[in-house]
Amino acid sequence: MRENLKKIYRAAIEAVNPEKALASCLSLDKGILKVCSNRKTVETFDLNRFKKIIVVGAGKATASMAKAIEDILGTRITHGCIIVKYGYTRTLFAIETIEAAHPLPDQNSIAGAKQIKQLLEDASVDDLVISLISGGGSALLSLPPANLSLEEKQCATDLLIKSGAAIHEINVVRRHLSLVKGGNLARAAYPSTVLNLMVSDVVGDKIDVIASGPFVHDDSSFSDALGVLGKFNLIRRIPPGALAHITEGAHNELNKTDDRNDNKLAKTTHLIIASNILCLEAAKQTAEDLGYNSIILSSAIEGDTREAAAWHSRIAMEVTASSNPLMAPACIISGGETTVRVMGSGKGGRNMEFAMQAASFIDGFENIMIASIGTDGTDGPTDAAGAMAHGFTMKNAAGMGLDINQYLQNNDSYHFFKSLGDLIVTGPTHTNVMDIRIILIA
Amino acid sequence: MRENLKKIYRAAIEAVNPEKALASCLSLDKGILKVCSNRKTVETFDLNRFKKIIVVGAGKATASMAKAIEDILGTRITHGCIIVKYGYTRTLFAIETIEAAHPLPDQNSIAGAKQIKQLLEDASVDDLVISLISGGGSALLSLPPANLSLEEKQCATDLLIKSGAAIHEINVVRRHLSLVKGGNLARAAYPSTVLNLMVSDVVGDKIDVIASGPFVHDDSSFSDALGVLGKFNLIRRIPPGALAHITEGAHNELNKTDDRNDNKLAKTTHLIIASNILCLEAAKQTAEDLGYNSIILSSAIEGDTREAAAWHSRIAMEVTASSNPLMAPACIISGGETTVRVMGSGKGGRNMEFAMQAASFIDGFENIMIASIGTDGTDGPTDAAGAMAHGFTMKNAAGMGLDINQYLQNNDSYHFFKSLGDLIVTGPTHTNVMDIRIILIA
Repeated sequence: MRENLKKIYRAAIEAVNPEKALASCLSLDKGILKVCSNRKTVETFDLNRFKKIIVVGAGKATASMAKAIEDILGTRITHGCIIVKYGYTRTLFAIETIEAAHPLPDQNSIAGAKQIKQLLEDASVDDLVISLISGGGSALLSLPPANLSLEEKQCATDLLIKSGAAIHEINVVRRHLSLVKGGNLARAAYPSTVLNLMVSDVVGDKIDVIASGPFVHDDSSFSDALGVLGKFNLIRRIPPGALAHITEGAHNELNKTDDRNDNKLAKTTHLIIASNILCLEAAKQTAEDLGYNSIILSSAIEGDTREAAAWHSRIAMEVTASSNPLMAPACIISGGETTVRVMGSGKGGRNMEFAMQAASFIDGFENIMIASIGTDGTDGPTDAAGAMAHGFTMKNAAGMGLDINQYLQNNDSYHFFKSLGDLIVTGPTHTNVMDIRIILIA
Repeated sequence: MRENLKKIYRAAIEAVNPEKALASCLSLDKGILKVCSNRKTVETFDLNRFKKIIVVGAGKATASMAKAIEDILGTRITHGCIIVKYGYTRTLFAIETIEAAHPLPDQNSIAGAKQIKQLLEDASVDDLVISLISGGGSALLSLPPANLSLEEKQCATDLLIKSGAAIHEINVVRRHLSLVKGGNLARAAYPSTVLNLMVSDVVGDKIDVIASGPFVHDDSSFSDALGVLGKFNLIRRIPPGALAHITEGAHNELNKTDDRNDNKLAKTTHLIIASNILCLEAAKQTAEDLGYNSIILSSAIEGDTREAAAWHSRIAMEVTASSNPLMAPACIISGGETTVRVMGSGKGGRNMEFAMQAASFIDGFENIMIASIGTDGTDGPTDAAGAMAHGFTMKNAAGMGLDINQYLQNNDSYHFFKSLGDLIVTGPTHTNVMDIRIILIA
């Protein structure tokens, strides 16, 4: 069962490898670049008609995307620039790599964003821009307005988060405090043609949310941003530079002197090359090949990790009790990203926490195995991607003198599973499509 | 879609109607009572060999169970006594009905429990006892030891709940503070023969948990109960009468003078005649007959109502996004019982709260309809069984000037759906197998 589980999660992660995914979406034949989605051609670009091909991008999976695009287009790429997390580099030929900080941006994020924006502003109507966007790009590609420091921008965001504003309200303000987010790079790229390729790490695959959508039209306005600040009583509390930038934008909007005008966005083709559901579907296919009746519940499971572990366990136990939702041997798959209410000071991540909570629910069900894995190969600040739990995890733990309640209270899932030998370690996968949970029922 | 939804939940509740369920489990032919489970005969009783047939029981569905048993056995029933919630009566001939209080017991619970215990103690080796146990029976059938008042027993339970003890630990103590729970009625019925028929309202259908298992052997001991009191520092805090009863029991156990001895339990055949999964399977069958691809996720979903509404919605939305876990038109079914963290002072129940939370998640998905229903016909302190939400609930609410956020904050789901005309009202169903959630995706 353990071997089957490994085969399933390896196939799942392999399916969202940016190099593999990009190669299956793009093909070059006699100067014609064909763009496919679900094996159907959605767009073609005659490369002979472009003077320059410029590659830009930012995100944790972007180096691998760049490697793949160099493999396909080779010397046709004129030049380019990508921003990646420190250490997340690949050897590239035509495209420059800038390393910057994640999850909080640093000066390299700003320098890189400026450089990319300049490349795009220099692009003409005869040029093709290929953008490679993936999770983490929001921090890595960061450019506040002239009168606002990174710290002040961060302060405004923190105030919003603490005010109780909803995530879409927070994003409205954030997009209006950035010169690159919310479609601003598509504005910079006008009048060139843009092919925007994305690896999605967001629930629902909303393209305006992936890396804050630098190439995606934002239909909210500066006035909307002002409205959010008013609603949460922040007008007098956010840094003056932030308020000044937003009120000026709103003033320009009202007087129609704003140049943020959709007619001036570069013509852009958007394509998600890899996402959570692609990963889950590969898992399902592999599980079925191994003889498991398989279903995908959803690629968009959020919420509390303990609650999620509970109901996933209940579905697994129902297979044993009544052959619902599937007859055993069964594989139940879900994706998304849960959150952990951290109470303790232990070491762990949401995937290992999920597995540890599940272990307590499925105790004694020796025919059940549950794994949760971060597709980027990193779960929390650890060297593990996740962990696996089974019906005898509790017995094994007790036999080794491990008190699971102590580990649960301390959120110390890493050391719990390290002792048991049930960590899942993949190393960096160079992709990032949230998490995958796999349940096997014999 | 609304009409289909009604057909599905009506069929589901009808399937767990005690009269219908009992009639499909028991049949009488030439004096032989045949007991079936899943259409297989699991036991037969030659009624000619018994001098008396005594019917006892307690619970919210017990009056209907008694009606059904009278319909089958008629004048063969010698006599009997059941305890039901005030107003939950049916017209019976041979069986006496005592009405008592729920959820907190009153003096009628004690008087009824004494009467039933006496009937069982009077039963001989030549007698058949048929017990009819259903949810609510734990409060309705209540008999503390001689030196303990109802209030003191309640006080001990409250202390346990507040101490943070797990539910199985609380139950160990409760069973040892009762002369009827934890198999004590099976002890009283020795040496007669018992057929214990149950309608399950508990997750996992554990027969020792349904109405605290008056006819089910309890493998915990008085010493275990002492251990729980010690663990949560309650030895000096629980009422002295409760401690005295438990320590005396533990003393007797150690000196093997205890008469709580399994050899002295009446020979008992246990049968769950209706449970949540039966209800869900009827829903599934009806949905399939109506042309929906259907699955049951689990009959044992517990946890926070808002979290549950979120992930149920996410699964429904995945049907639309990627045809997982099923191709539309689809019906996704689950059961169990969630909990609500009550923050406001509005009127509602966990089912209406589930529907209201779901409405906010599926806003705009006009092809999705989500209903949650208490199978007993009562959701919280209201005349509704539940409610239905759909992708345009939010739009409808806004059109009527209803601010869903106010209703959510005030846990006022009843008035929200009453205004919208989306309450589900069934009236008393005379059964009780927890809740059912039905999601239709067109």
